[in-house]
Amino acid sequence: MSDRADPLRSFRDRFLLPDGVIYLDGNSLGPLPRATPDRIATVIRREWGQSLVGAWNDHGWIDLARRVGDKIGRLIGADQGGTIVADSTSINIFKCLTAALTLRPDRTVILTETGNFPTDIYIAEGIARASLRVVDDPVAALDADVAVLMLTQVNYRTGAMHDIASITAAAHRAGTLVLWDLSHSAGAVPLTIGADEVDFAVGCGYKYLNGGPGAPAFLSVAASHWPDLRFPLTGWLGHADPFAFDPSFRPAAGVAGGVVGTPPILSLAALEVGVDLMLEAPIDLVREKSVALTERFLTAMEAREFRSITPADPTRRGSQVSFRHPDGYAIVLALIARGVIGDFRAPDVMRFGFAPLYVRYQDVDDAVAILDDVMRAEVWRDPRYQQRRAVT
Amino acid sequence: MSDRADPLRSFRDRFLLPDGVIYLDGNSLGPLPRATPDRIATVIRREWGQSLVGAWNDHGWIDLARRVGDKIGRLIGADQGGTIVADSTSINIFKCLTAALTLRPDRTVILTETGNFPTDIYIAEGIARASLRVVDDPVAALDADVAVLMLTQVNYRTGAMHDIASITAAAHRAGTLVLWDLSHSAGAVPLTIGADEVDFAVGCGYKYLNGGPGAPAFLSVAASHWPDLRFPLTGWLGHADPFAFDPSFRPAAGVAGGVVGTPPILSLAALEVGVDLMLEAPIDLVREKSVALTERFLTAMEAREFRSITPADPTRRGSQVSFRHPDGYAIVLALIARGVIGDFRAPDVMRFGFAPLYVRYQDVDDAVAILDDVMRAEVWRDPRYQQRRAVT
Repeated sequence: MSDRADPLRSFRDRFLLPDGVIYLDGNSLGPLPRATPDRIATVIRREWGQSLVGAWNDHGWIDLARRVGDKIGRLIGADQGGTIVADSTSINIFKCLTAALTLRPDRTVILTETGNFPTDIYIAEGIARASLRVVDDPVAALDADVAVLMLTQVNYRTGAMHDIASITAAAHRAGTLVLWDLSHSAGAVPLTIGADEVDFAVGCGYKYLNGGPGAPAFLSVAASHWPDLRFPLTGWLGHADPFAFDPSFRPAAGVAGGVVGTPPILSLAALEVGVDLMLEAPIDLVREKSVALTERFLTAMEAREFRSITPADPTRRGSQVSFRHPDGYAIVLALIARGVIGDFRAPDVMRFGFAPLYVRYQDVDDAVAILDDVMRAEVWRDPRYQQRRAVT
Repeated sequence: MSDRADPLRSFRDRFLLPDGVIYLDGNSLGPLPRATPDRIATVIRREWGQSLVGAWNDHGWIDLARRVGDKIGRLIGADQGGTIVADSTSINIFKCLTAALTLRPDRTVILTETGNFPTDIYIAEGIARASLRVVDDPVAALDADVAVLMLTQVNYRTGAMHDIASITAAAHRAGTLVLWDLSHSAGAVPLTIGADEVDFAVGCGYKYLNGGPGAPAFLSVAASHWPDLRFPLTGWLGHADPFAFDPSFRPAAGVAGGVVGTPPILSLAALEVGVDLMLEAPIDLVREKSVALTERFLTAMEAREFRSITPADPTRRGSQVSFRHPDGYAIVLALIARGVIGDFRAPDVMRFGFAPLYVRYQDVDDAVAILDDVMRAEVWRDPRYQQRRAVT
């Protein structure tokens, strides 16, 4: 495959990418869409600055969490009206786990797998009324005590991808609800969570959705649960009539009750730009190119001294690939210094994400060439690259 | 008092206010600081756009929630290092109430007063392990079952203000912890929550702090509680070592464990601009002018047909005043159409906020003159002003 023949090639120009950079970390923080600066300047100067508090009506801020939620709902194939944007992924996991436990009052176990994203596990640990089971093979561990099975579809560390439909069906056969964390999936792989009867899903706005640093997260609930849905965090914006300032709480119907406090409008507006851009790209083409990019990189790395921890079968991996190397940390820093931005996860994992909207085939080849250079000259031995920073 | 002699007069120019508007709703959404658009453009184009994921280190995003928290801590006189910015006020109330219940394991009651802000009450209702008592005189209702007394210092509807020091002392005598909601106080009245031994405080970033629509909220905890502090929501950014991706949760020391997920950086950066501006204004002068502005407005309104529900004693009110009127809704809309922006709270309360950094004495006189005009001609009878909008 060549960049010239790439049907998605025009999308790269829709981002403002720094010169001389091959960005292979869009799975951590997506880059800046070209349309974002002007959109946010308008929200700030015209909507906030000129309309002041009236902007809640005049510029639709009051519906923004649902409007962007509906758009993300289309991206992930959710039941219509079942998705909102609110808070962070962590907070949304808390809401969904607690709501799931309420729907399964006679069960007390939250089940997840070893190696799931730490925050997901921390949040589950913090729920006093439930006990958490962390196992290697969660489907085999399903039993009548498990209220909810919580899994991340694409593992943040290895890039391994679960099959949502079959695991969800297995959970349902055991009477267990599912919560899928789609943080490393949304905008990268085709999703049909409505058809797959996924009970709850959450995900991140700032990775493949390119919503900007700390963009608010999404939360989706199957329509079948709306009548009995009760979220534990009951804030004014999740009220059926927020501006009545009713002294007692009546939740808004369905998933809208999962909006709690006032959403961060600037960050939410930036997320909408990223989601709108993603909706323009046919997701099947995105996936096809993602597989081709990761395949090309894996093939090149196979010939070198890096051991992949990402499944070789493309149907079993997401849009990122990872390798273990004892000097991985220093190598990643040396690559970053040369404009190839990947990241590192302790203790020894080098991680590279391939976001098809702006990563080119040529970028893969160039990244490999630069890596060869780093390894040949052992530039990663430079003391500069041995010092730990807060974030890589 | 005249605007010419106002020691705060230069601050008005630090905001971008629309022409022809008298803005008396800064207690709902503060206006746009002049420095905000450029700051956010820099965060977007240079920090996010050019540094990409590296901005977490290179531009200090990783410490931003604590840095802005420290600044707000100075504004409210909190123990040093005890304040962070995170999530929404609603979510922070949940965190604090749950942490307070953990610190008082033998008590199960959350006590609050009738008329407290609805969200505060909704959140407390949602905490299953506690029972909520809502009473007219909470100090009189303190007993050995009350784990935590939750109050809003300045009532959102009436503007009535509590004395934090004496109520906190009374609660402590009963062995009860306090949670103060400072949403309508921070940036408007002098606060010394550290000296007053306030256990927990939360508040809003988008009212008198001028942080922008949906700016993240703050949360403050007395140093005496840090050793035993345990928050219920345990996300990766509240971990002692967030980038270790440790499979089990070890909370960061003190209040830092109250940061849960990734903060919305654009909204958080906008909040910092508002807080920096507020820190430049001596809070005693702010309070002095606030009292003079509300006094001037109350005096003018007394001679008219509006019944104030705000305490006449200036030491017992915040920076906003409210009036009941059966046609209050239409009158507020008619005023807004003439550039005097106040707001309305059901069923019949007209509310006007006086933020001393940009409201002038002349604005008070002009607002009264415009109100006279609206009442004399009965322009509020116009059908346009009778239709309910989502937000006023």
